Amino acid sequence: MSTLARLLIWCPDRKGIIAATTGFLADVGINVLEADQHTDPDDGTFCMRLEFDTEGMKLSRDELTARWGELAERFNMDWRIAWAARRKRIAILVSKQDHCLQDLLWRTSIGELGGEIACVISNHKDCAAAAAQHGLRYHTLPVTPDNKRQQEQHLLEVLADAKVDLIVLARYMQVLTEQVVAAYPGRIINIHHSFLPAFAGARPYHQAHERGVKLIGATAHYVTTELDEGPIIAQATVSVSHRDRVDDLVRKGRDLERTTLATAVRLHLADKVLVNQNRTVVFE
Amino acid sequence: MSTLARLLIWCPDRKGIIAATTGFLADVGINVLEADQHTDPDDGTFCMRLEFDTEGMKLSRDELTARWGELAERFNMDWRIAWAARRKRIAILVSKQDHCLQDLLWRTSIGELGGEIACVISNHKDCAAAAAQHGLRYHTLPVTPDNKRQQEQHLLEVLADAKVDLIVLARYMQVLTEQVVAAYPGRIINIHHSFLPAFAGARPYHQAHERGVKLIGATAHYVTTELDEGPIIAQATVSVSHRDRVDDLVRKGRDLERTTLATAVRLHLADKVLVNQNRTVVFE
Amino acid sequence: MSTLARLLIWCPDRKGIIAATTGFLADVGINVLEADQHTDPDDGTFCMRLEFDTEGMKLSRDELTARWGELAERFNMDWRIAWAARRKRIAILVSKQDHCLQDLLWRTSIGELGGEIACVISNHKDCAAAAAQHGLRYHTLPVTPDNKRQQEQHLLEVLADAKVDLIVLARYMQVLTEQVVAAYPGRIINIHHSFLPAFAGARPYHQAHERGVKLIGATAHYVTTELDEGPIIAQATVSVSHRDRVDDLVRKGRDLERTTLATAVRLHLADKVLVNQNRTVVFE
Amino acid sequence: MSTLARLLIWCPDRKGIIAATTGFLADVGINVLEADQHTDPDDGTFCMRLEFDTEGMKLSRDELTARWGELAERFNMDWRIAWAARRKRIAILVSKQDHCLQDLLWRTSIGELGGEIACVISNHKDCAAAAAQHGLRYHTLPVTPDNKRQQEQHLLEVLADAKVDLIVLARYMQVLTEQVVAAYPGRIINIHHSFLPAFAGARPYHQAHERGVKLIGATAHYVTTELDEGPIIAQATVSVSHRDRVDDLVRKGRDLERTTLATAVRLHLADKVLVNQNRTVVFE
Repeated sequence: MSTLARLLIWCPDRKGIIAATTGFLADVGINVLEADQHTDPDDGTFCMRLEFDTEGMKLSRDELTARWGELAERFNMDWRIAWAARRKRIAILVSKQDHCLQDLLWRTSIGELGGEIACVISNHKDCAAAAAQHGLRYHTLPVTPDNKRQQEQHLLEVLADAKVDLIVLARYMQVLTEQVVAAYPGRIINIHHSFLPAFAGARPYHQAHERGVKLIGATAHYVTTELDEGPIIAQATVSVSHRDRVDDLVRKGRDLERTTLATAVRLHLADKVLVNQNRTVVFE
Repeated sequence: MSTLARLLIWCPDRKGIIAATTGFLADVGINVLEADQHTDPDDGTFCMRLEFDTEGMKLSRDELTARWGELAERFNMDWRIAWAARRKRIAILVSKQDHCLQDLLWRTSIGELGGEIACVISNHKDCAAAAAQHGLRYHTLPVTPDNKRQQEQHLLEVLADAKVDLIVLARYMQVLTEQVVAAYPGRIINIHHSFLPAFAGARPYHQAHERGVKLIGATAHYVTTELDEGPIIAQATVSVSHRDRVDDLVRKGRDLERTTLATAVRLHLADKVLVNQNRTVVFE
Repeated sequence: MSTLARLLIWCPDRKGIIAATTGFLADVGINVLEADQHTDPDDGTFCMRLEFDTEGMKLSRDELTARWGELAERFNMDWRIAWAARRKRIAILVSKQDHCLQDLLWRTSIGELGGEIACVISNHKDCAAAAAQHGLRYHTLPVTPDNKRQQEQHLLEVLADAKVDLIVLARYMQVLTEQVVAAYPGRIINIHHSFLPAFAGARPYHQAHERGVKLIGATAHYVTTELDEGPIIAQATVSVSHRDRVDDLVRKGRDLERTTLATAVRLHLADKVLVNQNRTVVFE
Repeated sequence: MSTLARLLIWCPDRKGIIAATTGFLADVGINVLEADQHTDPDDGTFCMRLEFDTEGMKLSRDELTARWGELAERFNMDWRIAWAARRKRIAILVSKQDHCLQDLLWRTSIGELGGEIACVISNHKDCAAAAAQHGLRYHTLPVTPDNKRQQEQHLLEVLADAKVDLIVLARYMQVLTEQVVAAYPGRIINIHHSFLPAFAGARPYHQAHERGVKLIGATAHYVTTELDEGPIIAQATVSVSHRDRVDDLVRKGRDLERTTLATAVRLHLADKVLVNQNRTVVFE
């Protein structure tokens, strides 16, 4: 629905925020479809997500934004509005393994995720055919210790050219440096192939097999400058047994990884995720 | 917190309900702690749950109820207010198997569920000791085809004497007739030992074993006059294999049944469940 | 490993079967890699799966089969041997929805399933491109009430031409008649989009939404002449809530369906499934 | 069944072990009921569990053990035989929280676990009533930094007096020193309230809340001298959300802990767990 919009709010809690907000929306002719709210008991941060229809709105979008901004200032709010008519543009970064990429391509092709893929970027050529089958540009940016900084500069240019809103690391095996992470705060999602914080770092399935765990997991999280330490959006686990070799963990893990990553991407694209204190509020 | 209260609302959807409701609460000095809302896309029913603190409220409870009632009428709302200071009173009905009973007794003893158990009622004597260990009255009302109607009359008297708000059928193997069900609409919770609607009726684990399913389930639901057809509150499943005999299904099922029933009871006692069109809205 | 083989045995239980079987294999120079066994306590059927390496075998395959057949007769065994070097050939039948097909194609392309896809057959043209991308023949056999019997005859011819070992109904929305089912006993796997026996028949997600369940499921089973009544190989469930519309159930269900079907196909191709009394023994 | 026995074997793999073993059992008139086998592909350790009926056995137990020992020596086997008629004796160690204790007491009372509880031991008095209700001896051994070594000596005496086969740490908040661990190798099971190796050590639910995970877990493992590093027997996880405070994690965790611990204890008592290379083989 092209007249749909979402308002996300986070600010110090105080009396009357919901009343003031929903009163404002009612006054300007907006019908609230979904309201979800949470106050963090630890630090008193008020968080709210409103989904509404602007069909009967008496203001233009710009007027709404301006008038709302005044109210928001009074309550000391952080906030953002997302218009559903403006679909978010996604860059998928991938290395050699294609299971997460293929899954995101397929889900996008049937309209499941709600955004559009702007391009696919890789440090290898392996996944070029998959991108081509979906009519997508594929940028190969091979990374070596020597050219890493330079290639990240190229990466930033490609991302800027493609007007990207969200970066998805779909088993991209390079660590992004601070210059990229800082350019897209809260807008880079990574899938890590373990139940974080267990088995952070390299070769988590080997670590899991070595430790003899009875469950393996996957974790989708926002990327911060601390490796594998960003806010977690979604996690899942599946049973394994002594019969499962590392290869079996990898196989079972592929299913976990792709569904967990897709869940996180879908939630982000629907503006259902807020970050507060390195933890996410997920309005599901 | 003794000043905590919850307001549940359900009514035909229209613009401005949230604004009017939260505006009213703000006006009378109430601080909303949690707001959760849902509109059924099928029939347009608006459902909302508000949890708030009446600490700074400028009205008495009776005044609040009266003033709120006026507003609610304008919006054609069904609603109820629950004061946390008034703990709900529970009657547990049980037959011979004690796993759900023991579990509810233990959870109540550590304050996990949020209500208080008024009495235990059974058609058998088997569970009397369990009730006694928790200092609870145990009413034995043996049921035969001949005395069923009469015993249900006794049951209603016991329930009335104990001022019961909620009846929990914790593996009670008698079907309640309409006179009991009608007396406690939306206030009788049953645990059925299958994933309804599969294996409704008698001996579900035998049915499940016969069919060779790879998962078994449990279903907690409100009781209506249609056997096993009432609104579902909570369900869970667990894996089984060809190695599991009926006895193993029964064993695995016990864990499912007691946790699923406890979940449903906890949600009900926290006023987190609304019924609309034979389906539940669970504000979790 | 091309010298790998699997022996499946099912027969009335009696003393000494395992000793006789493993003794025979040791005598002819075969090293058992995996042994799994189960005796059905209900009807006394002994079931065993042995995976072994024929590297050092002193006999030819034909000699082994002949000599083993003599022993098997003494114990009144049903049995079959599968040589891993001979990869099973699969026909995938599909209608319009492609999620299970795409998933099976992708898994096969990375060698996850262990068989090879011989062809894709459909009553619609929608999935032709997906088959083409994997270089597979795509047979369109449109079905109307008038031509159904005739098209099934064509279907049987296509299957015979392609030397098919296993038929996978990957959301094929036609009911196969007895002539096809009887031609491939225990070799047709269907995915049903519900937790059978709940919501058998048409439009299970609509049924599930109407009933207000809190979990939805998927069931992979062998096809028999009784619709949705064949032996179950794998089942899975996922949580849903009042917020989920039928479209959301369909979306969540797609993930369940494709992974559950893939699990069943993988188990079948690894000769890990035996059928006894309309129930499966799954040697996992 | 009092004539039931179980044989566990672990040794370097070589040809003919299964044939020799099952041949031996058949020769002495034993009927194998269940056979399960696994060879560790990493280090080539052969592991087997056989459950059999000694009803028609031509030897005494001592003769069987002696004759079997000769064969086992030829194959360089480690092995043990457990006679079901001899029920294992359990000591439960607990501190203040009683949920795991209550659960084990209840499961034992209905015959679900298959062993018998010899005594309950605690460093606090809190759980004395629970033990008394089941007619069990309750030993209070308060531990301070000063008396720890001495109290462990008392503990060892109590365990020896009670002829204990298995020690279950049911949320016992003291770390056992090497003298106790060494006295009961592979016979001490602990429940840790996290998904190990995540959140080892103290206050795992606080750690989990701080990290913002979307799942919490529980881990039952054998105790070794490395804290929280012993072989894992069973693990489970459950979803949590931003709405869950530490108290909610604790509540949800209680259910995980008690069922995960009970699962591990049941498997151990049924002689279904072998330890190889700090990992368990669980014959389920």
